[in-house]
Amino acid sequence: MQEDIHATMVAIGDRAKQAAGELARTPTEARDAALRAAAAAIREGREAIAAANARDMEAGRAKGLTAAMLDRLHLTDARIEAMAKGLGDIAALPDPVGRPLAEWMRPNGLVIQRVAVPLGVIGIIYESRPNVTADAGGLCLKSGNAAILRGGSESFHSSSAIMECLRKGLAEAGLSADCIQMVPTTDRAAVGEMLRLTGAIDVIVPRGGKSLIERVIAESRIPLFQHLEGICHTYVDGAADLEMARQIVINAKMRRPGICGATETLLVDRNVAGTHLPAIVKDLLEAGCEVRGDRTTEAVDERVLAATEDDWSTEYLDAIISVKVVDGVDEAVAHVNRYGSRHTDAIVTEDAEAAERFLSGVDSAIALHNASTQFADGGEFGMGAEIGISTGKLHARGPVGVEQLCTYKYVVRGAGQVRPG
Amino acid sequence: MQEDIHATMVAIGDRAKQAAGELARTPTEARDAALRAAAAAIREGREAIAAANARDMEAGRAKGLTAAMLDRLHLTDARIEAMAKGLGDIAALPDPVGRPLAEWMRPNGLVIQRVAVPLGVIGIIYESRPNVTADAGGLCLKSGNAAILRGGSESFHSSSAIMECLRKGLAEAGLSADCIQMVPTTDRAAVGEMLRLTGAIDVIVPRGGKSLIERVIAESRIPLFQHLEGICHTYVDGAADLEMARQIVINAKMRRPGICGATETLLVDRNVAGTHLPAIVKDLLEAGCEVRGDRTTEAVDERVLAATEDDWSTEYLDAIISVKVVDGVDEAVAHVNRYGSRHTDAIVTEDAEAAERFLSGVDSAIALHNASTQFADGGEFGMGAEIGISTGKLHARGPVGVEQLCTYKYVVRGAGQVRPG
Repeated sequence: MQEDIHATMVAIGDRAKQAAGELARTPTEARDAALRAAAAAIREGREAIAAANARDMEAGRAKGLTAAMLDRLHLTDARIEAMAKGLGDIAALPDPVGRPLAEWMRPNGLVIQRVAVPLGVIGIIYESRPNVTADAGGLCLKSGNAAILRGGSESFHSSSAIMECLRKGLAEAGLSADCIQMVPTTDRAAVGEMLRLTGAIDVIVPRGGKSLIERVIAESRIPLFQHLEGICHTYVDGAADLEMARQIVINAKMRRPGICGATETLLVDRNVAGTHLPAIVKDLLEAGCEVRGDRTTEAVDERVLAATEDDWSTEYLDAIISVKVVDGVDEAVAHVNRYGSRHTDAIVTEDAEAAERFLSGVDSAIALHNASTQFADGGEFGMGAEIGISTGKLHARGPVGVEQLCTYKYVVRGAGQVRPG
Repeated sequence: MQEDIHATMVAIGDRAKQAAGELARTPTEARDAALRAAAAAIREGREAIAAANARDMEAGRAKGLTAAMLDRLHLTDARIEAMAKGLGDIAALPDPVGRPLAEWMRPNGLVIQRVAVPLGVIGIIYESRPNVTADAGGLCLKSGNAAILRGGSESFHSSSAIMECLRKGLAEAGLSADCIQMVPTTDRAAVGEMLRLTGAIDVIVPRGGKSLIERVIAESRIPLFQHLEGICHTYVDGAADLEMARQIVINAKMRRPGICGATETLLVDRNVAGTHLPAIVKDLLEAGCEVRGDRTTEAVDERVLAATEDDWSTEYLDAIISVKVVDGVDEAVAHVNRYGSRHTDAIVTEDAEAAERFLSGVDSAIALHNASTQFADGGEFGMGAEIGISTGKLHARGPVGVEQLCTYKYVVRGAGQVRPG
């Protein structure tokens, strides 16, 4: 069995590599046509997708999945339509492949161009959200990359039904079915095999909870676009406008507490601990947020719980916030760099100098001034759909959209130049 | 002992991380002043460096190092001056840190900037060339990164003497000595420890022979800028100008056969196997190059040896070339992508369409038209000194200069924006 899985995965990798070579030479029209045809196939196939999803939901209930997991698994009509619309939106994006990124001429007449090209083969490992099949497959196709998708076992039937639609899109556009492949087994050993396909897969994108990401980090021999956690901070500086700070903090935490760009820790300058802190804590408590604070914050309201050291490094993804009073912007920056996850952090202040100290000081993919951390999103950045937010520093940092799914090559044009000396 | 090395490496990593945080906020003037002061210290300390090098050379001879290894180890006056000049050249480069890479405004008024920032901490693992200490340390400093250097045991005294000069430069500019650290032991276990410092080191750059690189690839838990091999090709198309082809091929192979951009395999279009092939093979043989050819090439000259399958994937780094006749540009591209190392490959042709097929078809960091593969060099690209040529696809591809030693962050400036919905 183990041997079979090894052979299956090697074959999938070989086919993906072959398809990637062809895709790199495909005009944008063919890739866009495949995306639009896949969107149409999803709309036409919504009943089949819903039926496959019902099978997964039934098995999930029998298996005792939590309500949150069942919710992520569930494909409502609206979610099916969102997948189709998403593929159409990706088709409408400008082609990221072939963009000239830079061009210069050398004194010897050589013309050097840096040109965007696809990465090659991208492996996506995800959990129970079946819509990732369409989203990730579509983003890889648009950027000229072959995709190998490995979804969670809970969503296997749903993902298979969506794959069928993607395959129809590829066929209608005359592209190889190997451009987007799905691992045909739910055996966990297939993930291990996938993470060792160094000759075939150029980058792995893990999407899911902490335990999945940690397994992938520990096992992968292939480079990753990783996003471990979003421990985001909002720092309310001594020179913050109180009304602005109140609006930003409540939005940063409570608009959608479960997204990775939600603020998990509020830092407040000691200089405004008597004015801003009580108002903001009250806002949070009244919005139904649990507040875990340091001593100073505890003293503000009896509903505030005591924060422990663990709170500073916890991603709640829930209506819970930790609050700490700090001595100015430098201590705020030090706290962010010590406990944060290099994701997204914001300062609220009217002091331009303090703002610049924070923006340049935090070692984060996204640093904001006077705006909500919930803007950490490829769509909000105007980059279109994204495959995730990278908290790594190499290649792609922050939102990973179709441009970040490309690499570059140097194309050098000469007239017979040879190198002297 | 193992425990001691572990503790030593963890402490080095912590200090580097601390220094990187400070360096990221250092003005370009301080970094450049440190580089210039280090160059002066090398010039002033040339006798001490030469004496340290003499110790290494003596031990190397006693150990029975090969002549080639002893040559790499040897620091002549000219090589010591070249190190000093190299540091001055790096100081004169424009500051890669803080460059605005892109800027746009969203409809809600948020201004988004993508800004170049240092990667953080860079680990360099190298072999017997002691000049890498100055070159790599200088490139990391210029790009605002802290460096941890681990040279080969053979060059330990030479590297230590060079480190002393770098340290003087840092001190004169008022920068922390921890900006550039050298691993203070020649114990191989230190390399293993270094490759697991995931919390401190952001990227590892291995520089050396195949066995070093393979060990680093196998063991590292940290992302790499890797350069495994330079199996470069020159393809002489059916529409190539004969004189241009002769000049390019002889330069691409024989100018310096030992550099990674030297051509290792010559591909010739069958259409010109009767005209171009004999002339080029004769040039190579007369220049003292060993030619290993396929059947057609063997028939050209009795001095041609028979190529084996292994020849197509061998990096000779010597005056040896493998030669194969192919059926046009598509077979040439297929050969390059099958046997090459994604480094640098060239086509010689007067046919613009064939040129574009080759340039877009080869999956190489550098694709050249009518120019020698020996141009694969950061200096020749006008990028200044480089820490190596990356054959990986992520982050940096091709020459890795000071710009490629940076990552970016998003700086978002608002006026109180919160995310709706």
